[in-house]
Amino acid sequence: MKRIALLLVAVGTLAAVVAGTSSSPSREEADPIATGKPPPGYRDWSFISVTHEEGNLHSFAAVLGNDVAINAFREGKLPFPDGTVIATLHYRHVASEENNKIFGRAQSFVPGPPTNVQFMVKDSTKYASTAGWGFAQFNDGKPLTDRMVLKSCFDCHARNKDRDLIFAHYAP
Amino acid sequence: MKRIALLLVAVGTLAAVVAGTSSSPSREEADPIATGKPPPGYRDWSFISVTHEEGNLHSFAAVLGNDVAINAFREGKLPFPDGTVIATLHYRHVASEENNKIFGRAQSFVPGPPTNVQFMVKDSTKYASTAGWGFAQFNDGKPLTDRMVLKSCFDCHARNKDRDLIFAHYAP
Repeated sequence: MKRIALLLVAVGTLAAVVAGTSSSPSREEADPIATGKPPPGYRDWSFISVTHEEGNLHSFAAVLGNDVAINAFREGKLPFPDGTVIATLHYRHVASEENNKIFGRAQSFVPGPPTNVQFMVKDSTKYASTAGWGFAQFNDGKPLTDRMVLKSCFDCHARNKDRDLIFAHYAP
Repeated sequence: MKRIALLLVAVGTLAAVVAGTSSSPSREEADPIATGKPPPGYRDWSFISVTHEEGNLHSFAAVLGNDVAINAFREGKLPFPDGTVIATLHYRHVASEENNKIFGRAQSFVPGPPTNVQFMVKDSTKYASTAGWGFAQFNDGKPLTDRMVLKSCFDCHARNKDRDLIFAHYAP
């Protein structure tokens, strides 16, 4: 009996380890609009693409996605399924004096100070009034609460209706 | 005895599952110089930074790293420990006609056709003659075998000795 008890403990422990490795935040926990916080672990999400906006922006960005987003991009699935979360990490687009000195010429641009992190969350029920997408922005970790600015995110993305409001393409 | 046998099977199965979920390629399997192939799963590695090189390059890149690399960057560890692998995914830096049309002005640059993927692998024993770093490049999945070109990677990176030959900084 003692051996059986020991084995049961072993099975229990292993089961807990397995459960632990496959745990991921619930959809509610991962929704920055609902929680007022960036989704846990978003900084380690897979890479979708990079962008560089000039005009009056001078911004440099990395676009990352959760597993639902990445699968949809890779499969070319449109519209994006519920549960998709896309993060865009914005920085100033600045010349790198450090690199240029080493290269011996002015050629290198790198991320300068971070400006904001934006999220788009797909939930076709919850965000039905904005084409199924919720919008959030964090400046230095703090959520932007200005509804007019968040509304302007939707207004611009809505112009890209053919691609379910998403500008980024998956970089191979 | 039958019950014990069943439990042993359960433990064995769970152990296999655990081993499977936590398995990662060995250092040899993850070394693109040794295998002639990109490290398995590198496209899903965590994001380090983005870069944009002008001059005669017009290149746009994402810099990704394996867990050893990411931990070292976050902890500001220099030199990078053995086992570090850094991937740089290069694309042409091109104007996005698609985005500019939507924005109503010429402001947007995105990754154009991919040009190459480069890797730097830290192994202070194996690559002692090149400051502990091995260099690999893949064009359309095929390894570059021109030793002079690979030597030129080292020659340029070696100018950045103070940062253990790594140009990229971790973007917050």
